[in-house]
Amino acid sequence: MNIAIVGLGVIGGSLAKAFTKYTDHTVMGLNRSVETAKQALEDGAIHKIATKEDLKEADIVYMCTYPHHIAKFVEENGELFKKGCIVTDVCGIKTEICSKLPEICKRHGLEFVGSHPMAGKEQFTYIASEAELFQGASYIIVPCGASEKSVETIKNIAMELGFGMTCVTTPEEHDRMIAFTSQVPHVLACSYVLSPCCPKHVGFSAGSYRDVSRVANINETLWTDLFLSNKEPLITELNILINNLSMMRDAIGENDSDRLRELLKASRLIKEGLGEGVISKN
Amino acid sequence: MNIAIVGLGVIGGSLAKAFTKYTDHTVMGLNRSVETAKQALEDGAIHKIATKEDLKEADIVYMCTYPHHIAKFVEENGELFKKGCIVTDVCGIKTEICSKLPEICKRHGLEFVGSHPMAGKEQFTYIASEAELFQGASYIIVPCGASEKSVETIKNIAMELGFGMTCVTTPEEHDRMIAFTSQVPHVLACSYVLSPCCPKHVGFSAGSYRDVSRVANINETLWTDLFLSNKEPLITELNILINNLSMMRDAIGENDSDRLRELLKASRLIKEGLGEGVISKN
Repeated sequence: MNIAIVGLGVIGGSLAKAFTKYTDHTVMGLNRSVETAKQALEDGAIHKIATKEDLKEADIVYMCTYPHHIAKFVEENGELFKKGCIVTDVCGIKTEICSKLPEICKRHGLEFVGSHPMAGKEQFTYIASEAELFQGASYIIVPCGASEKSVETIKNIAMELGFGMTCVTTPEEHDRMIAFTSQVPHVLACSYVLSPCCPKHVGFSAGSYRDVSRVANINETLWTDLFLSNKEPLITELNILINNLSMMRDAIGENDSDRLRELLKASRLIKEGLGEGVISKN
Repeated sequence: MNIAIVGLGVIGGSLAKAFTKYTDHTVMGLNRSVETAKQALEDGAIHKIATKEDLKEADIVYMCTYPHHIAKFVEENGELFKKGCIVTDVCGIKTEICSKLPEICKRHGLEFVGSHPMAGKEQFTYIASEAELFQGASYIIVPCGASEKSVETIKNIAMELGFGMTCVTTPEEHDRMIAFTSQVPHVLACSYVLSPCCPKHVGFSAGSYRDVSRVANINETLWTDLFLSNKEPLITELNILINNLSMMRDAIGENDSDRLRELLKASRLIKEGLGEGVISKN
């Protein structure tokens, strides 16, 4: 198939590299900065630098630009796409994009399938892209009314690219789960390192500090947008966390060892039940 | 030197294995269960199974039993120890042990140096012990009035055993820092997995979930004791965290993107300032 990737940042660039390394599909790349597109061509990450006019050759278009840019781009250039082609994206939040793209695509005779590859980096440019970024990760698909055939196509490609699993869901369920699995840990890491103890941690810390603080090295502009565009689910999860932390704090404050032990045991049983009770260093 | 290790659990056992693997010191082990001591001898982790009477041969005694047991043991058996020998421990909380042991040791003509090797596992028995457990970790020393010579001795041995650094501090500073670096992440992991979303995370999660939830696989009996014996510093840190989380939640709730971006930027600058801004997967 002919694949077009619009936006060669860390995700678009990694998709391109995975396509050319692991599949037989033909890949063209369209990027605002021509230098980056040239670099991608030189690296063998893409077979061809695409113009908007070339989009008529693509069977699937992967939109890998900033979220707010996607609807605008497809709205303005949809007539240039091949009729019946699949348009997909890589946005981390789905309710908003799925409220617009299916309708815009339909109007232009295209089919939208929402995607969220569950891998990323704390760098966002093409330089940081790598063919192996997705190895073993989950590829979430949000069909938004797309045909089973198109969903299957996107699913099969994900497995070709090296993803470990696919997962089909609704925009609402996606955003609720992502609030828990990804957004809360980022808010948490940033809240944690604001303690006055943090700058003095060397010598006193080990794996626990390292793991909780890791993603505090955040791109504050991107994540401010991501947090605000998933406001309700994120606030719900933050309130659950703050409430659970407060329960534990109160049990400690009241020397209520029975209550504290019960809470910790409940946590252990959940974690063990998920088969994640592996040995690891503190 | 002659080394005695009292208590061959995961820490005592790992110390024994590191001593026999990496140093020329002679190691004897004293353990409540004789089977474990025999296993350690068979493994070559110790050179000899010790009786209490053998303690008179030890130049340094590493007390690796449960915290509340240590004072009792030294109180009852201090007369059997060699006069002038160094007694040290591996407790994760120091204010309490340092309020008793220096005085008990002095009364018996021994010298106490508090220790906290910053490594551990989510398993607590000899079976999980390994010579490499301490590689590159920090070894915290709490002198509690011990002579410089004894502190130097303990410090040098730590480096022989494979620790990456040593750090000398007071019991109060130790407990304040440990509340932040180790105890808060454990309370946090347990609070996090109590979200109703947790059991459904598979397919929606990646590194962020894995890292925050890792230590939820907790020994609730041990950690209830550790939390309650460090109540004040831990509650102070939990309140700081809850407060920071609430600030971020409120900025999100009020759509205050400027405020949110500022908070996240402050976090990033702290993390970057610590030289920990490495690339890693989300």
